[in-house]
Amino acid sequence: MVEKIKATNITWHHETVTRQDREAGNGHGGAVLWFTGLSASGKSTIAQALQAVLFEHGCQTYVLDGDNIRHGLNKDLGFSPEDREENIRRIGEVAALFMDAGMIVSTAFISPYRADRDKARSLCGDGFIEIYVHCPVEVCEERDPKGLYKKARSGDIPEFTGISAPYEAPENAELTLNAAEHDVEQCVGLVIAYLQERGILKNA
Amino acid sequence: MVEKIKATNITWHHETVTRQDREAGNGHGGAVLWFTGLSASGKSTIAQALQAVLFEHGCQTYVLDGDNIRHGLNKDLGFSPEDREENIRRIGEVAALFMDAGMIVSTAFISPYRADRDKARSLCGDGFIEIYVHCPVEVCEERDPKGLYKKARSGDIPEFTGISAPYEAPENAELTLNAAEHDVEQCVGLVIAYLQERGILKNA
Repeated sequence: MVEKIKATNITWHHETVTRQDREAGNGHGGAVLWFTGLSASGKSTIAQALQAVLFEHGCQTYVLDGDNIRHGLNKDLGFSPEDREENIRRIGEVAALFMDAGMIVSTAFISPYRADRDKARSLCGDGFIEIYVHCPVEVCEERDPKGLYKKARSGDIPEFTGISAPYEAPENAELTLNAAEHDVEQCVGLVIAYLQERGILKNA
Repeated sequence: MVEKIKATNITWHHETVTRQDREAGNGHGGAVLWFTGLSASGKSTIAQALQAVLFEHGCQTYVLDGDNIRHGLNKDLGFSPEDREENIRRIGEVAALFMDAGMIVSTAFISPYRADRDKARSLCGDGFIEIYVHCPVEVCEERDPKGLYKKARSGDIPEFTGISAPYEAPENAELTLNAAEHDVEQCVGLVIAYLQERGILKNA
């Protein structure tokens, strides 16, 4: 709980505030939940619903996704191979900062290449949790909420993941969600159960 | 206070969690405290001490500085004019994300150019608070904790702010700290008093 700071009492005991200090203060661990999967597989929807559940239970949590990254930090990047790699690199670095700040941060990007995700993993350390949102491309294409698959099929979008560009599925994801079989609530429940099992969230 | 989430109770009411929701949960506002000033003026020391005081009083707070940015997110950048501008742009974008996450985030970079700081201001909106850590270059040079001024004088570091490159002092900083006259505790007290006056921190 936040307390009023009195002008007569400007003192401090911490030289630097560590991730461990923040985790103790928050009552939960910091972590990077790296959602990966095809366009329209449900990454962002699950990450946003998870965030709402965590927030409503008093957790410090945030979501990095296309909405707040592509038009901000990464607005100078296009879709060349180099720019795609740099896009994921920066997201990994920012996610690591949020985790260091004690937060449970979710990232919701297709992030199709194993090598890029592994780089993010190595810089986030043991707080990195790869969550594969598995959904067959046929199901994603049928959903197609933004009409992107349609544009990919007509050739208006070149190199579209799952259609004309590869998606390298995770081989050792910490968690795989079957987003064609399970609804959002069930997927969120599976992530929370995993975080409790890992001790990142309290389980008692 | 964080609460256990029960597997039988995975529900949520927020569609998205807004900055306002987070601020209400934290009991204080989000803000970007943009410290600017010469090398060795005291930016980082004041920002770290402020962070400790805020943390010890239950606030959500973080510091972006050379230690966690230059070797991470911005490790691809050098010291050309373009790279310096991009360095500050990215820091502004990341600071805006932390503010959106409900945190009081301090940035501690020389950030010598008014135009770059003004860009950060415009993307952070009304939560941006420019804090000029004013300290005469003679005092900074005498402190010289990392021996940088010595290297600048000998020419080993070209274009060093305050010696061989300009520092454009803020003209309308929200707060100016006289870091040659006031000690760290006094500077921290002035920032906190300002945050209380603005209602970002509780003042009752």
